[in-house]
Amino acid sequence: MLNIYGHFLSPPTNIVRLCVSYLGLPHEYIHVDLQKGEQSSPEYLKINPAGRVPALEDDGFLLSQSSAICKYMCGLSGPSDFYPEDLQSQAKVNQWSDFAGKHIMPAMGRLFFNKIVAGMIGAEIDKGAIKTGEAMLARDLPLIEDVLKSREFLAGDKLTLADITLIAGLEPAEMVQVDISAYPSIEKWRKTLMERGFYQRVHSHFAAEMQSS
Amino acid sequence: MLNIYGHFLSPPTNIVRLCVSYLGLPHEYIHVDLQKGEQSSPEYLKINPAGRVPALEDDGFLLSQSSAICKYMCGLSGPSDFYPEDLQSQAKVNQWSDFAGKHIMPAMGRLFFNKIVAGMIGAEIDKGAIKTGEAMLARDLPLIEDVLKSREFLAGDKLTLADITLIAGLEPAEMVQVDISAYPSIEKWRKTLMERGFYQRVHSHFAAEMQSS
Repeated sequence: MLNIYGHFLSPPTNIVRLCVSYLGLPHEYIHVDLQKGEQSSPEYLKINPAGRVPALEDDGFLLSQSSAICKYMCGLSGPSDFYPEDLQSQAKVNQWSDFAGKHIMPAMGRLFFNKIVAGMIGAEIDKGAIKTGEAMLARDLPLIEDVLKSREFLAGDKLTLADITLIAGLEPAEMVQVDISAYPSIEKWRKTLMERGFYQRVHSHFAAEMQSS
Repeated sequence: MLNIYGHFLSPPTNIVRLCVSYLGLPHEYIHVDLQKGEQSSPEYLKINPAGRVPALEDDGFLLSQSSAICKYMCGLSGPSDFYPEDLQSQAKVNQWSDFAGKHIMPAMGRLFFNKIVAGMIGAEIDKGAIKTGEAMLARDLPLIEDVLKSREFLAGDKLTLADITLIAGLEPAEMVQVDISAYPSIEKWRKTLMERGFYQRVHSHFAAEMQSS
């Protein structure tokens, strides 16, 4: 049985939640209360010494980093179009997962932390980081728009781990006033994915759990 | 034949150069002159529409993102301890590669850009980003120190892609005044790796190519 530790305001957690939902693997999801500091408790540091979410425990095997967790779960699930075995196909999925995880996600993270979290925890707002995050998105979203104009999914004509990574990365857009409708192909792709069962089984939208937590 | 496009001041390029050197795959390395803007030339944008280095071309197959490129080259090279096939072993290599690539590298990147590059290209220095980068390293280097105190390499007792990723991420340390000697296990691990043939075949240290370019 897989135990997945996370928090619904953590985009990397949401990659893992969307991925396990898509794969349909039996698992238990354990909410780590970041506001109460549970990520630094002695119990949690045994799961992930880095004190971060998400983390995975599979019968004593411990793993962190969302992308590594997803690839591991794909391995458990077996070969599929979602994470293809063919070397070049898998490489393109890795490329676009990393593009989403290393460019879009850190950009959105800068906005989310400084526009939302900083106020919640009384941290200083870094306006330079907001400016950098906006510049990063202004550079990279048009590249993704071009890709999704030419094909249905990020890495080709099938839904893959790359799409899951990007959709989780884009989730906070409304909350931080990033206008996705300026990118019609991204908006269409995003809307279609968010309506699907695997997405709706996790939540209706980013931070929907806030009302019920 | 693999064509690898990159620039020696780009840590992600250096991950790929160190990786291909370790694997011993025949390849051609093509320097992209970022100062002259070659990354935005029509020719280069055909290789990587994102206008970034590194990129790989393998007989018409195009790939970007350092981590995806390295995994692809490991696939070409065949199963090895460097990137093991076993699901859990590979997951731990992925975890530590991502830890280095998503925490250490962006931290060092903030310092490198604002302490070195900004002055070279006349960009504004973002002191908040320097502070954030230093805080990220102060949080994460002790975690890596703990790991390297307990075992020879980052992901276990064998050198893997995770070590290559970390060593490339740490390369600019001296240039940006990050004192690695405060972390004796990291320093020892780093020194040992930098003395090895696969490292020396790329360069003696970060930016050594500057003198000869």
